[in-house]
Amino acid sequence: MNEALLLQLEIDGFNAAYAAALDERRFDDWPGFFLADARYTVQARENFDRNLPLALIDLESQGMMKDRVYGITQTIYHGPYYTRHVVGCAQVLGQEGDRIRAQANYAVFRTRPGDASEVYNVGRYIDLFERTPAGLKLASRRCVYDSEMVLNSLIYPI
Amino acid sequence: MNEALLLQLEIDGFNAAYAAALDERRFDDWPGFFLADARYTVQARENFDRNLPLALIDLESQGMMKDRVYGITQTIYHGPYYTRHVVGCAQVLGQEGDRIRAQANYAVFRTRPGDASEVYNVGRYIDLFERTPAGLKLASRRCVYDSEMVLNSLIYPI
Amino acid sequence: MNEALLLQLEIDGFNAAYAAALDERRFDDWPGFFLADARYTVQARENFDRNLPLALIDLESQGMMKDRVYGITQTIYHGPYYTRHVVGCAQVLGQEGDRIRAQANYAVFRTRPGDASEVYNVGRYIDLFERTPAGLKLASRRCVYDSEMVLNSLIYPI
Repeated sequence: MNEALLLQLEIDGFNAAYAAALDERRFDDWPGFFLADARYTVQARENFDRNLPLALIDLESQGMMKDRVYGITQTIYHGPYYTRHVVGCAQVLGQEGDRIRAQANYAVFRTRPGDASEVYNVGRYIDLFERTPAGLKLASRRCVYDSEMVLNSLIYPI
Repeated sequence: MNEALLLQLEIDGFNAAYAAALDERRFDDWPGFFLADARYTVQARENFDRNLPLALIDLESQGMMKDRVYGITQTIYHGPYYTRHVVGCAQVLGQEGDRIRAQANYAVFRTRPGDASEVYNVGRYIDLFERTPAGLKLASRRCVYDSEMVLNSLIYPI
Repeated sequence: MNEALLLQLEIDGFNAAYAAALDERRFDDWPGFFLADARYTVQARENFDRNLPLALIDLESQGMMKDRVYGITQTIYHGPYYTRHVVGCAQVLGQEGDRIRAQANYAVFRTRPGDASEVYNVGRYIDLFERTPAGLKLASRRCVYDSEMVLNSLIYPI
């Protein structure tokens, strides 16, 4: 049992590092949390619950993630904002060989210049991790969020 | 000391599973987190701090919890909403035999259809756990919330 | 590696106890989380990122913290409010001898009497811990918050 608990803790540390990279705007570090052929999606809960494929963001490789980072930092015109992720403790759902299924609830707060902080996007990470020689990496992260509002301006990864 | 730390971690995992059951609307699973004769209360901080008995919800057994779930899912007329629990890491306060006293801060966000997510209920879980052959179970969970507002519409467990 | 993970968990427990002391208004306990010559600052992210020294609160010893607590509880005229800290899992950044560098994201919610709970202050703790015979103590805690708003009324420690 201790092994399962330590795995849970390791994922908590992973999620904290992931959140820190985004909140500190080290966007170039973000694709490094994933495997080369990983999938990253941001999807409304309504679509997820009904098995509908529509997603706000759907990236099918680390290359597409790098492209997205390039877009964010170099080309997309947008009002800047800070994000702050507060992620709940992870729940390990299963393990097969090197693959671990886990999930965690998150709340992302947004702060625009001169404004108060506000609830921005809450939901859960549904994750498939792989243990590699370089530590845990995401084979897949699905961010399933509860509300469809405010999202026309979702620029940075969740 | 490692034992106490692992216990803390085990409770974090319990709280994550508890939150997931509620947020995924698996309400029938909810009473299973408790012992048969467990107590579940949702109480304003103001009353708790003054030792006043008044509570918004006060259930004295797993049977009453099942009844509540039946009410939520079958009979109570209410506008639907999603909940999202983000629970802070647990604090183990004491242990006597199989009984463990612990607490954790929580924030619950609510999302109504077509609306933005909003802060709904924040407070702390004051818990008494019992270690059973089936793992940790709650002998008592007291949800002490900071605000008395919005609560006429509190339908789902916290 | 297990040692590093257990250290992470120990800091999570520390942060939970720290949050509980403040949220339960046991302000006299607050300086006890620090070393005698510890530093405590509350600073806007904008200043932190630019290495500007201006901070909202800057206390250079446990004595100054006790003074602050005296001010809060005895002399400062202010509208009362409850706080609720939800702190994400800690990230251990490094360790040298007895000193540990760590950080954690936090969200503080405020509840004023008769009002709904609201997002009050979100940011991150940037910490230097020291292991002492009495357990972990803060040699330095820097609270770097994302928004400059609402802060004219920041009375209680973050």
